[in-house]
Amino acid sequence: MKIVKGFIVDSKDTYQLNTINLIKQGIRNFARQEIVSRKIDGTLFRYTYKDAYGRMQQLANGLESIGVKLGDRIGVLAWNHYQHYEIYFGLPGMGAVMVTLNLRLSPQDLSYVINHSGASMIIVDEDLIPLAESIMHLCKKVRGYIIITEKDISNIKTRLNPIYDYEDLLKKSSNSYEWPNLDENSAYAACYTTGTTGRPKGVYYSHRYVYLQALAFTAQISMTVDDTVLQLVPMFHVIGWSKPQAATYAGSKLVFSGKWSLDDLEELTQLMVQEKVTVSGGVPAVFMAMLEFIRKMEEKPDLSNIRLICGGSEPPIALMKGLWDETGGEIIHSYGSTEAMAITTLNFFKPWLKKELSEEELWELKKKQGTIVSGLDIRIIDEEGNILPHDGKSSGEILLRGLWIARNYYNAPLTKDSFTKDGFFRSGDAGSLDSEGYLKITDRIKDVIKSGGEWISSIDMENVLVSHPGVLEAAVVGLPHPKWEERPLALLVLREGHESTTKEQFIEYLSKSFAKWQIPDEIMFVQSIPRTSVGKLDKKVIRNKYKALYTH
Amino acid sequence: MKIVKGFIVDSKDTYQLNTINLIKQGIRNFARQEIVSRKIDGTLFRYTYKDAYGRMQQLANGLESIGVKLGDRIGVLAWNHYQHYEIYFGLPGMGAVMVTLNLRLSPQDLSYVINHSGASMIIVDEDLIPLAESIMHLCKKVRGYIIITEKDISNIKTRLNPIYDYEDLLKKSSNSYEWPNLDENSAYAACYTTGTTGRPKGVYYSHRYVYLQALAFTAQISMTVDDTVLQLVPMFHVIGWSKPQAATYAGSKLVFSGKWSLDDLEELTQLMVQEKVTVSGGVPAVFMAMLEFIRKMEEKPDLSNIRLICGGSEPPIALMKGLWDETGGEIIHSYGSTEAMAITTLNFFKPWLKKELSEEELWELKKKQGTIVSGLDIRIIDEEGNILPHDGKSSGEILLRGLWIARNYYNAPLTKDSFTKDGFFRSGDAGSLDSEGYLKITDRIKDVIKSGGEWISSIDMENVLVSHPGVLEAAVVGLPHPKWEERPLALLVLREGHESTTKEQFIEYLSKSFAKWQIPDEIMFVQSIPRTSVGKLDKKVIRNKYKALYTH
Repeated sequence: MKIVKGFIVDSKDTYQLNTINLIKQGIRNFARQEIVSRKIDGTLFRYTYKDAYGRMQQLANGLESIGVKLGDRIGVLAWNHYQHYEIYFGLPGMGAVMVTLNLRLSPQDLSYVINHSGASMIIVDEDLIPLAESIMHLCKKVRGYIIITEKDISNIKTRLNPIYDYEDLLKKSSNSYEWPNLDENSAYAACYTTGTTGRPKGVYYSHRYVYLQALAFTAQISMTVDDTVLQLVPMFHVIGWSKPQAATYAGSKLVFSGKWSLDDLEELTQLMVQEKVTVSGGVPAVFMAMLEFIRKMEEKPDLSNIRLICGGSEPPIALMKGLWDETGGEIIHSYGSTEAMAITTLNFFKPWLKKELSEEELWELKKKQGTIVSGLDIRIIDEEGNILPHDGKSSGEILLRGLWIARNYYNAPLTKDSFTKDGFFRSGDAGSLDSEGYLKITDRIKDVIKSGGEWISSIDMENVLVSHPGVLEAAVVGLPHPKWEERPLALLVLREGHESTTKEQFIEYLSKSFAKWQIPDEIMFVQSIPRTSVGKLDKKVIRNKYKALYTH
Repeated sequence: MKIVKGFIVDSKDTYQLNTINLIKQGIRNFARQEIVSRKIDGTLFRYTYKDAYGRMQQLANGLESIGVKLGDRIGVLAWNHYQHYEIYFGLPGMGAVMVTLNLRLSPQDLSYVINHSGASMIIVDEDLIPLAESIMHLCKKVRGYIIITEKDISNIKTRLNPIYDYEDLLKKSSNSYEWPNLDENSAYAACYTTGTTGRPKGVYYSHRYVYLQALAFTAQISMTVDDTVLQLVPMFHVIGWSKPQAATYAGSKLVFSGKWSLDDLEELTQLMVQEKVTVSGGVPAVFMAMLEFIRKMEEKPDLSNIRLICGGSEPPIALMKGLWDETGGEIIHSYGSTEAMAITTLNFFKPWLKKELSEEELWELKKKQGTIVSGLDIRIIDEEGNILPHDGKSSGEILLRGLWIARNYYNAPLTKDSFTKDGFFRSGDAGSLDSEGYLKITDRIKDVIKSGGEWISSIDMENVLVSHPGVLEAAVVGLPHPKWEERPLALLVLREGHESTTKEQFIEYLSKSFAKWQIPDEIMFVQSIPRTSVGKLDKKVIRNKYKALYTH
């Protein structure tokens, strides 16, 4: 899109939309605001915005002291904790780029991300050292590892080399740092998407993107200094769904969840109640488990102030209604992606719809992804590229463009087709828009499986399976799962003479390319796999046939 | 400030922060939202965002049809009504600049603004035609007048020539317009400040400024689609204190006040109650008058959802507490200016202060201007330029810099000193900051009088008075006034032989340079005027001596 200049009085050197201004101004007004962080042993660490800001400046000075420079990319392999929050501002604030590393990736993909981004250092949590060790031989350009630990660094045994102690770096450094006046188009962080086929693809968020998303999020959710935000979403996912940045803008109290899995949700639910959390975000599986726990509580907590931003997949009415009935808490359905950041839609009821629709219709409406947030353009197109009407029926590929939507993948010339000439990102999701602008995701064009909020590429897995000498055909689909939302199922047609190959052998084979949690729960040997009229795998038929496999 | 580039993946052609995207996206989600507009006869006009958007496009096409082009400056001389809202988006949307004309300026100043901005057309309300006629001979470059009227244009008798009919222009034009993809640094509007000595100075707000201020305002006030915004502040003042734009971002219902003065506040208070207004803004004098009327109402309205943004001068505790006691409504004190736009501070209580301070202390706190909105930097400096501590005592000149703070006056080379080299605007106001960041305005360095929310330059008036052959010395000060907040008093020392010159003669003399409402209520002849040790007029002493003149 050509930009047209109007009457320009002053355009040079406008005040920059960078996260330095975001944090400085957050701290200025909210220095005494509290930050709570859950440690590995479950105890809580507490300090203030002011403390955090001092340590962010120590971090910037400390990084500089070990040679980190403007424009460097630095990997971060860490859980949700206060040091990670410090990194969120201290690292990009000095003009380096935070490369967020998804600790659930396979070693292959993880090392690919590190090498592709050109990361020169990795900041790593003590308990993730084994993961870092497993890929260090693949990442020759990494020239140092910074360990986040409560222990004395000399007590840590690791093959990582050289290592630095995060706390020690800070202790040796001044808590006053002269932040650069960073161009707002400088990259703040890189997040690699693993949702589709092929190698992870790097989305680089500029400071401008991050600032505007934080501000829009604050405005859309009406976040204020009276809110308490629980950071549940892993901070390596789409920069924590922008919640730490939005909270900083609003001056909200922050609560970091620490290291957790779905098995820790009792403790996290208690934390949520105890710290009087009013805003959080996550995938339906997380809130389902929380609701499950709340149902067992004798005294139901009052969560009538809470807004739980729920994305990743459609929250069931049973979840939304259940939470509402038990606690007064509200689930707000939203839609986002690595390429479009956390918030592209949000489901709020318009005042006139509250008057016109029945209660039942409103619950149905709440299942939709919501209306597009101001700052973004949306289009639904058919296969020929025609723009479809907003009639609530016509379904096509969702295209997004706007203030924080990616316009390319970094250094990935073969991915041009993911972006249109007029600046739209092709989401790979199919959906419809109704006359009120509510988006409904109807299908995934990208063939992926979502398990516990993480992506598994079925196409990649099929490609690996058919590379096995014993496999004639392979199909991998995601099936509904009560805990993980979806889990993969693989169907295999074996070649003649290979009928004796076992499930276990295929699991071992897959383990070379995939993380353990990505391996299908079930592998079935079949005579043939359903295909569409044009010969493509007919996954709808497969999913339908086996839909109850993991739920009965 | 030098801008430092970090790691830049993509900087060209970012999606633009312009008001076209603001309105398009507001309309998309809130097409059915209502807009109410008070007409001159007191009746109400109602339509929707969708209707308005259609007419904005008709306006853009209509303006194009009479030769208005990208970059043109167009004057607007109008009250608060729905057509003015249409102009707010339709005119800057096509890339022209809206020159907001303060209808209370003297003909001299008004024509200066029109000529200085290079406005080529003027849009004018029917009842303001006489004002336009009074200056047309001074504005030779204006090549046409667009009249907003409900009448048939042929029934309007005016010397303005040529004239166009606003409604007729729209009727003839398509309601679909291909908006340009406007560079965010293009000017959206020009607002001329008349606060200080000399000629009005032009502040040109870019689309970026307007977009970011609207978004920040929405976030700070937690405005949503459930809000109803009453536009009381004249839309020629600092683009209506950004409320129409913020409401459009949030999708709030809009209520336009029409033509009004302090004498119409009974009707406006009733309108506020009847339309269930939740957000409005104005100067203390306006809310004082509203409270006065509410006190007389038999049944007190429930305004417990209302946030009244109060700026211009300090709202008395009696007002804030009175409104709270009578209706549950809240006054939120704020600070702004033409150069810094409407919202630079807002007074909200931090949760910890609510716990720590007594009720009385909280009311005292509420008198302060509030904390600086995120997106802005503030400094308080002494006369030598030293930065003063945030101790709640040290008072100095307030410097502001940030996302929507002016960095120059348009085409006014002699005003360079109003801006520092590192990008701060010198506000001319004196204030202090306490340790929590609350700003307190302690004095005006600029020597101005504020009457009913409008500025009168005492220095300009003194200069005119001493130009009279009979005047030896002159001082003009603002004194507290129950209705207008301040009204001017002039003290004159007459030259020998001129003792018989009368008040009336001086009033007539001043009328050549000043608007009627700017003329002092009282002119006193004195033997001498108090001066400071360095020989400057000692206005503090004067103000103190006569402080009860207009209130007793």
